[in-house]
Formats: sequence, C-alpha cells, structure tokens
Amino acid sequence: MAERWPRPPLYLQSAVSRAGRILVSGGTRTDRLTMAAVCRVKVFGKQLISAQRCWPIISWRAASTTFKSSDLQVELSKHPKKKPAVSDLVFGKTFTDHMLTIEWSNDKGWGKPHIKPFQNLSLHPATSALHYSVELFEGMKAYRGEDNQIRLFRPMMNMERMHRTALRVCLPSFDKPELLECLRRLIDIDRDWVPKSTSASLYIRPTFIGTEPSLGVTKSNHALLYIILGPVGPYFPTGGFSPVSLLADPKYVRAWDGGVGNYKLGGNYGPTIYVQNEATKEGCQQVLWLYGEDHQVTEVGTMNFFMYWINEQGETELVTPPLGSLILPGVTRDSLLELARQWNYLIPTMENGPDIAKRFLKELTDIQYGRTPNEWTYLV
Amino acid sequence: MAERWPRPPLYLQSAVSRAGRILVSGGTRTDRLTMAAVCRVKVFGKQLISAQRCWPIISWRAASTTFKSSDLQVELSKHPKKKPAVSDLVFGKTFTDHMLTIEWSNDKGWGKPHIKPFQNLSLHPATSALHYSVELFEGMKAYRGEDNQIRLFRPMMNMERMHRTALRVCLPSFDKPELLECLRRLIDIDRDWVPKSTSASLYIRPTFIGTEPSLGVTKSNHALLYIILGPVGPYFPTGGFSPVSLLADPKYVRAWDGGVGNYKLGGNYGPTIYVQNEATKEGCQQVLWLYGEDHQVTEVGTMNFFMYWINEQGETELVTPPLGSLILPGVTRDSLLELARQWNYLIPTMENGPDIAKRFLKELTDIQYGRTPNEWTYLV
Repeated sequence: MAERWPRPPLYLQSAVSRAGRILVSGGTRTDRLTMAAVCRVKVFGKQLISAQRCWPIISWRAASTTFKSSDLQVELSKHPKKKPAVSDLVFGKTFTDHMLTIEWSNDKGWGKPHIKPFQNLSLHPATSALHYSVELFEGMKAYRGEDNQIRLFRPMMNMERMHRTALRVCLPSFDKPELLECLRRLIDIDRDWVPKSTSASLYIRPTFIGTEPSLGVTKSNHALLYIILGPVGPYFPTGGFSPVSLLADPKYVRAWDGGVGNYKLGGNYGPTIYVQNEATKEGCQQVLWLYGEDHQVTEVGTMNFFMYWINEQGETELVTPPLGSLILPGVTRDSLLELARQWNYLIPTMENGPDIAKRFLKELTDIQYGRTPNEWTYLV
Repeated sequence: MAERWPRPPLYLQSAVSRAGRILVSGGTRTDRLTMAAVCRVKVFGKQLISAQRCWPIISWRAASTTFKSSDLQVELSKHPKKKPAVSDLVFGKTFTDHMLTIEWSNDKGWGKPHIKPFQNLSLHPATSALHYSVELFEGMKAYRGEDNQIRLFRPMMNMERMHRTALRVCLPSFDKPELLECLRRLIDIDRDWVPKSTSASLYIRPTFIGTEPSLGVTKSNHALLYIILGPVGPYFPTGGFSPVSLLADPKYVRAWDGGVGNYKLGGNYGPTIYVQNEATKEGCQQVLWLYGEDHQVTEVGTMNFFMYWINEQGETELVTPPLGSLILPGVTRDSLLELARQWNYLIPTMENGPDIAKRFLKELTDIQYGRTPNEWTYLV
C-alpha cells in the first residue's frame, strides 16, 4: 500500500498526448458519501506507508473564546413537516424541522448556540460569504442501526477539518467538542428524521460563513456557524456499487501546489460544476482530476481516489495520493487506509479486485450501522 | 511595451531561494480601484505587443432569454438615509437607498428587474452560493464631473466579464446592454449619492449568486443577480499615490494554469485574506503573487501588475503578464495598455519612472471625471 502520485498507465498517457482528453472507464463507484472511489481494483498490496498530514499549523487567532453547548437555547418547531418515504429520498433536497445557528462578532465573540425551526437566513447584500467566498462546510452522516441506536462516524475528524478550514479563511476558532455536543443535541431533537433503513441515513451539513456587511477584501468581523440536516438515500440516483466512466481532461485543474485544495472551502466546488457538465456531455458520470505535466491522478469528482493495480514493477499495490495542497483529507480516505493496514496483517493477498472494494464498503457500513462495534462510532 | 511574465531581478530570486520569502519595497501605488499597481517605474519602453485575450469561448447555454430594462419595477424608499461627508467615507461600508434585484429560475427564466429599498436578502440555508461559492461580482465606479454630469468608465467591459464569469459557474446568460440600462436607472435614482468631489466616487457592485436551495454539487436552478451602490473615498485608508511594501512568498499561489484566476469569482478572493494578513504581520501593505519555479510575478493584492524597468538586455520596457488563467483581465489593465500604445507614438521616452505612473493616473481620472472627453465614458 502506498501513498504516492498515481499516474495513468502509459497507454492512457499517450492518449492524452494525442487527443488532449481521455475517457477512463471501468472504475468502481459506491455511494460517494459512504466510500471513496475505488478504481481499477486488482490484487491486494504489500507495502505500508504512513499517511502524511501536510496541512500547515495555523494558530494566529487565539482559541480562548468559544460557544458552549451548555448555553444552548432551544425553540421547537410548531409545524413539523411530513417525512418522505425512504424510497422517495433525493440527495440534499429535504431538510428536517430544526437547525443550529451560532453567531460570532469580533466585538462580542461567540453568542449562544440556538436550535430553532428550519428557516431562511437574513443576510446583508454585502455579506462576505456572497462576494469573497468566505465560506466552508462539512459533510457527515448519522446512521440508525438495527438496534435503533443512532451513530455518527468519526465526527471529531470533521470537527477538526472544519476548524482548520475556518482558520485558513480567517474565521474564528471554536471548541470542537462543544460543537459536536451542539450537533448531537440537534440530531437528538430531530432523531425521528434518521431513516429506519440501512440504505439511507441522515446527512449533516455544518456550514460556516463570513457575514461581514461591507465590501473590503479583509477578515470578516461577523460570522455565522450553522448546521442543517436532511434524510438521504444514495448520492447518485443510479445508486449502489456499479462501474463509472470518468472524464480526464488535463485542461481543467481542480487544485494546485500553494493553493487551498486541502480545505473544504466553497470556492473549491463552484468551478467544478462546469467541468462535471462537460463530463456529462461526453457520456461520463464523473471527472478524473489530473495535475501536472505527467498527468498525476488526484481526485475523482468530489471524492478521493484509490487505485489497486499491478504496477510497472509487477508489484500489486493499493495506491492513493499523499495529502498536501492538492488533496482533500477525506475521512473515508483515512478510514480505508486504516482498515487496509489492519487487514494486511491478517490477509496479505486477495483473489480479485472488486472484492476489496466490496469488502471496504461492507466493513465501513457494518461499523456505521452498528453491526460491528468499533471505537470510530459515536452514539447520539 | 511587452506582455510577458515579469520575473523578479536575480538578486530577489536568490533571496527567495535563501529565505523562502522576500519583501519587495518601493513600488508605487494609487487607489487600487482607479489604477493598477505600477511598480519599479524607470523609463518608457519601445516594443508594442497586442493584448492576448485568452479566455475560452463558452456558449453551452443559449442566451435566448433575458430580463428587459423596460420591465423595471421601481419601489422608492420611504426612509432615505443621511449621506456621509466625503471626508468620512470608508470603502465599502456605506450603501445607498436602493438596490437592483433580478431573479432567475430554470423553470421560469428571468423575472422582471426590481429597483427597491436597500434591504437584507432572505436566503435558504442550503443556498448554493453559501456552500459551493456559486457567486461572482464586478467592481465599477460612477464619477461626478465638475460639469455635474455623472459618468461610468467603460461599463460594457464589466458587463462582458460578468457574463463570461457567469457562464463559467453555470449561471444563466443575460443581455449585457439590458443590464447596463438597469444599472443606469438605479444610479439615476440614487444620483444624489454620487459624491460632489473628484477624489471620491460611487462604487458599484454587481453581484450574481446561485440560490439553488439544495445540496448537490450541480448547476443551480435558481439564481439572483443584484447590484448595490455606495459612495467611496480611496480604497486604502492612507490614500493617494505613495510607495508600498509587498510580501512575496512563493508558498502561497493565487491562481494556476487550468484554474479560474481569470474570472471574477468569489472563490478567488476568500483564500487571499489570510495571506494579506501574513503580509500585514510582516509590515507589508500588499501581497506580490508569484507563480512557478522561476517565481513569475502575476498580480499584486487584487490588482494587475505593471513593471517599468531596464531589462536584462538593457532595454527599457513596460511589462505586464499576458492574459490567461493566472491573470484577471482588468479594465484598468486594458486601459493602461491602450493609453501606453497611444502615447508611444507621441512621446517615445520619458525622463523618470514615477512620472509615467502619475501620468497614467491623471489621464484616467481626467477621462473618468469628464475633464477630457473620451469615448470610454458613458453618461448616466
């Protein structure tokens, strides 16, 4: 197993040189929010290299002020909405009855956290999030197990990434366990919205925006952290565990050395929509993002990338790009690497490719839905 | 005069190699919204190379639907605000009594344009502008001349850049002259807000955001185009025409080949705030953005960059980076190149550096405030 830059096989590279763009097909895809893309799966590898955590340590703003979950103000909705059937769920279109909001200002610091009925935000037209993309988000899920318990999966990893991203766009620090406890309370209030199904879950969208009401390109003196929730089925309408076609066009570059591709900033996503549409026009489902003159493979769509193959030296290896400014440090990425390390001690080889992807998926969902007890889960 | 990649002089390059970051001082700065940064000004150059326009032609969405200025609905404010004195103006903090809003949806197309009292926006918490930075803006000014006429400066260039940027983030097309006429009507209604001063002006902020109320990373089916206005003095509190210190740290890269640095997207600005703060901590006023292993100079802060110097061949030249994905195609940039081309035929050399920067500033402001009649102005 190696974390290094995957390069496309030679025949693909020459196709790139000739045509300017290539199509890669035959990858294996699962629910993107459950599992990173696992492509070209062949045989299990041997070598283990530790994950490198390459984000810079940013500590210019003291973390002395934070909101407290013990200050939570709760206003319950008087008009609970009808919950859709699991079979009718479309990703990201249905939201629960409540949301969490926490305001911050440079003068007053953090206000009290509020859980209140889901409602529109009232924003000044000069709001810095709307002009300069002072905005970031996280994506997580809550799973209802067959034991009816509701579990989060490694939620502190999301809290930590959110905190790191906030400091990169000069939004204020906060106490990560306090935010997790506010989130736990919110899910608890909307717990009936967590689908009673192991093919669906409750999607969680923590969001943090600068709300400075003036137009200079400077640090926001006002900010709003909020969390919304919604029941979801699979991210892709076609669902499940099926091959995808990928558009790889070196003309479009997602992230770059010295940039911010390793932060979950809104600005990393908007420009990809156009390229995704280009992929769709070419009959592909996702974009394979390349980088550099030798067309290093970086990510797929909005997912991390794993390749399991027999390399030029005839070795079988599982390979994924090392962390750095080109790669979002995904929770699923980290989890797959951890699992692969554990399995390597037990099962040094596997018979064929797709099995490893299926095994990853089974192991992750067994943990997430509580079929396998694991310290990665966090009970709501 | 040349459009090519300015490289820092050799002694600066070795400083970069040694220290990892360098400080460049002695540049010349004017109001950033009036004039691009003009640094290291020496003597006027000889060679003329045409500006290259390198943005891709994007035409995937038909422009058949647009809003019409003749449909404008006007609701006047019943509570006009007090106008601040010119000496009290701070950039971007004061707004006029009215704003323009135009809604769009995939189902209904463009709605009627509305001029209405300046007010907060009511936005769904999942709004695509707040999560994926589906957002863009323009920056322009209206100037009141000593003849009391109000003028815009080359406004169609802003309309064109806005339209181009909209298509890059899959926001809908519109008719550019119709938007300009809506803007003209808005300024006309708030014309008393245009400062009676030739050291101040009315700043204009056209903004275009995706308002899709769901969480998939896909084309927005809802959008809002709006324009807000505010009287401004100089962008920098210290004002005027004085040298600046620049922080040049190759660790931070603003834009990259294959990216979107040539579009006025919000996502290009948020990540720069942190770097600007780093500059401030080092005692510098702005960031000098470098690119590539040979530290090509690209932009300064949020401005285009011009260098006027004696090059390695002993020639005097005015140099600015060519357009492409690293460089925002600035209206001021284009105007300086046009002026330099005109002057070159008349005055092949000048005596010293700062004079060319001052001459650029005088010529531009003479045109903007109507002291010199010019086809670049557009009467409100």
